[in-house]
Amino acid sequence: MKLELTTKTNGVDTTRLQETVSAVKAKPELGRFNFRIENRWIECGENRSEVKSYSGCGQDFTHKRDFILVADEPDILLGADRGANPVEYLLHALASCVTTSMVYHAAARGIEVEHVESALDGDLDLQGFLGLDPTVRKGYQQIRMKMRIKGNVTDEQLKELSNLGPTFSPVFDSLKNGVPIAVSAERIP
Amino acid sequence: MKLELTTKTNGVDTTRLQETVSAVKAKPELGRFNFRIENRWIECGENRSEVKSYSGCGQDFTHKRDFILVADEPDILLGADRGANPVEYLLHALASCVTTSMVYHAAARGIEVEHVESALDGDLDLQGFLGLDPTVRKGYQQIRMKMRIKGNVTDEQLKELSNLGPTFSPVFDSLKNGVPIAVSAERIP
Repeated sequence: MKLELTTKTNGVDTTRLQETVSAVKAKPELGRFNFRIENRWIECGENRSEVKSYSGCGQDFTHKRDFILVADEPDILLGADRGANPVEYLLHALASCVTTSMVYHAAARGIEVEHVESALDGDLDLQGFLGLDPTVRKGYQQIRMKMRIKGNVTDEQLKELSNLGPTFSPVFDSLKNGVPIAVSAERIP
Repeated sequence: MKLELTTKTNGVDTTRLQETVSAVKAKPELGRFNFRIENRWIECGENRSEVKSYSGCGQDFTHKRDFILVADEPDILLGADRGANPVEYLLHALASCVTTSMVYHAAARGIEVEHVESALDGDLDLQGFLGLDPTVRKGYQQIRMKMRIKGNVTDEQLKELSNLGPTFSPVFDSLKNGVPIAVSAERIP
């Protein structure tokens, strides 16, 4: 017989979360993570990424199983529509990170949430991608994220919750403030 | 019997691509696109996005089928590892967009590519997410994208190819230069 004492809030094991905080506090280099993917072009707008391994806390890890992510473009953008397109994946990365960051930090504060959903949308002007107008940016001009939260929380706690994602989310920070990106290319013989 | 005259390079219908360019040139408001997703939290680090509709060229569209994207965190980050995590999705968004942007713009220039693959990785310091050190950013500190390209191209064309993605990719621009993001939250009664 095995008895387990778990202390979960929002499904997050807050005992392990606190242990992680203590470990990284004591040894900051344990906080260094490296995430990676491999992508392969199929045809036209279709390509696939394999998500397999990562490292952190001074160790190398492999996901429970490989995750294959399929990107494509819809017909209006000349693709076969076999998957969400890259800018839709970007919205998913943002939604999932803001949500998870909120849920974890709420758990650390002892705030329980019952339900979280969000609708995101972003504006893009194809004049940028097509290179028709140099004053029009290629990327998103604006992204909106509208969260709806259910929980036994005060209005003040609701406001606190809504700030947790933007304050702590790695994708939110990356996308809002930009990231240095180094691209190189070599020939396959 | 149906005869089709197609002019495809890299799988991209360059006749339709040229028609798109002409249409947006003539009527710039056709270039305005809006992409969107809906996300729902499941538990702990797991949440799911539904990718369904979008609009552009003055019309509303629905994808051929709904795409459901599952995000989760691995065990070391307290999740159940049921999907790639948000920062891995961010790398996939970048890889797929840079690749597709290169392939489309190469097609427009008449440059054929045979094979494209890329390896991406990014550095994240958990001290940021955990709020342990205010001088450490929450997001990626640096992302590297190493492309490998096969094709009957000159060295000059290879260099040109490797610049097309970073020059025209909407996700590259969004992530490198940042995007205004408006987050709001309301209560579900």
